[in-house]
Amino acid sequence: MKTLAESRIAIVGLGLMGGSLAGALRGRCRQVIGVARREETVAVAQARHLVDHGTTDLAQAIRDADVVVLATPVRTILRLLPVIGSLLPSPGLVMDVGSTKREIVAAMEHLPPHIQPLGGHPMCGRECSGIEAADPTLYHGCTFILTPLARTSPQALALGTALVKAAGARPLLLDAERHDRLVALLSHLPYLVACALVATANVGRSADPLSWQVAAGGFRDTSRLAGSDVTMMMDILLTNRDWVRKAMASYEREFRRLRRLLESGDEGDLRAALEAIRAIRQSIPLVHQEEE
Amino acid sequence: MKTLAESRIAIVGLGLMGGSLAGALRGRCRQVIGVARREETVAVAQARHLVDHGTTDLAQAIRDADVVVLATPVRTILRLLPVIGSLLPSPGLVMDVGSTKREIVAAMEHLPPHIQPLGGHPMCGRECSGIEAADPTLYHGCTFILTPLARTSPQALALGTALVKAAGARPLLLDAERHDRLVALLSHLPYLVACALVATANVGRSADPLSWQVAAGGFRDTSRLAGSDVTMMMDILLTNRDWVRKAMASYEREFRRLRRLLESGDEGDLRAALEAIRAIRQSIPLVHQEEE
Repeated sequence: MKTLAESRIAIVGLGLMGGSLAGALRGRCRQVIGVARREETVAVAQARHLVDHGTTDLAQAIRDADVVVLATPVRTILRLLPVIGSLLPSPGLVMDVGSTKREIVAAMEHLPPHIQPLGGHPMCGRECSGIEAADPTLYHGCTFILTPLARTSPQALALGTALVKAAGARPLLLDAERHDRLVALLSHLPYLVACALVATANVGRSADPLSWQVAAGGFRDTSRLAGSDVTMMMDILLTNRDWVRKAMASYEREFRRLRRLLESGDEGDLRAALEAIRAIRQSIPLVHQEEE
Repeated sequence: MKTLAESRIAIVGLGLMGGSLAGALRGRCRQVIGVARREETVAVAQARHLVDHGTTDLAQAIRDADVVVLATPVRTILRLLPVIGSLLPSPGLVMDVGSTKREIVAAMEHLPPHIQPLGGHPMCGRECSGIEAADPTLYHGCTFILTPLARTSPQALALGTALVKAAGARPLLLDAERHDRLVALLSHLPYLVACALVATANVGRSADPLSWQVAAGGFRDTSRLAGSDVTMMMDILLTNRDWVRKAMASYEREFRRLRRLLESGDEGDLRAALEAIRAIRQSIPLVHQEEE
């Protein structure tokens, strides 16, 4: 297995995540090849100097690649993996940046034996999407989860780790099941929480057209994730349905508990619950640090 | 009634809201007098040049005031109003910046006839609190709701409006009932939504200590309001309990609807719901504008 500096890296999918990763890796490896479905996307990636070479031809792009990074929505990754397996002739590393990991890792098990698979999920993102929003600094300082398979060699894991670090991120090894359970709570649930908030406010807006005038920073931040790309989120929810359902059920319990405390009129209990929650929120180190 | 430039303005409560308002008004009126319970708060307000004069003596502060602005938690405002009524000798305007309006406006009805009352609620705020966090630009561009009473004279309303504009905010007239219904949905509900999210994630954290490492920007923003000052929020929730309960019930319905769509497995329906929510989120003008 080559070093990162010696590697040709093909990035399949030039949206926010793929385009940003391409820009971050360019100059830190032998070549960054960007693959997109649409000619216009390739043109923008080239015009923005995010890739060394861009193409819409998947087979051509990965023929000489040492590393292939799949940066499309999760279910497109699932469809692409068998294709990649047949198109990549020489030993190579196949990674992804999909937001759920169990189904992807299961599909990676079926790659031909000459291919080294490695699941990945960078914990960054924005509501904007597309190559126009790509930013080579997107990965700086973010946690990049890696989910190696039993068949992933130490050399392949080392190369994947080097790639993550070259992009400015901090690698964190997790198994796919644990990853999916954690992100259901900390990423997919917040999206649905934000969606339900927007839906509720919109019911209120039908009742009073002034609603949005009263919406301030608190509403803006709490509802922000509801603007996420729906195709990406659909793939996430449908490939992590069991853990997301559990997280939603748990959330409904906590929300109901707060409503009952408010209804009960016991001020001491409500205050204690809110103080405890505030203390937890203040104790989250990463969250707090990023805020200022 | 004097003009704003001629007025002595006493601001009672030098936390984030009061301290920021003092700093914003200083130089735009005859004098800004800051009143706080603690000597240290007065000292900081003076050291930061947020007030022309600071004191812990409420009676002394408002004896010569033309305008009194109550900038404490809501239930402290309710306790202060009768006191202010007896301490303010000459005709003057009494305003507040409390986050709920029905109970405050009802209490303002009992002020002596020589006092002009005007409810107010600026739609800005931060999770940080206290005089250290005060920022004279806090009000810039924010909607500042004014809830005049039937007894509020046009002159008093004009003076209150001038004060709001001098602070850089945009006045919006609403009746107290409508205000409380709107902010239940757009401000108090988001707080509780964020609290339930933190509580849920914390249950997950007990199950897996890695949780916070996986928390990224989405979780940070969606949970931000859970760090709000609890005394302030308690007063808000307990003086707007009926509308907050209705907003919570409505939210629970919307959340359950999303869970059922996810469980039903009908991809088309789930996608349509999420696309509609995303379109609503993108259409909120203020929110969108502030984001970039």
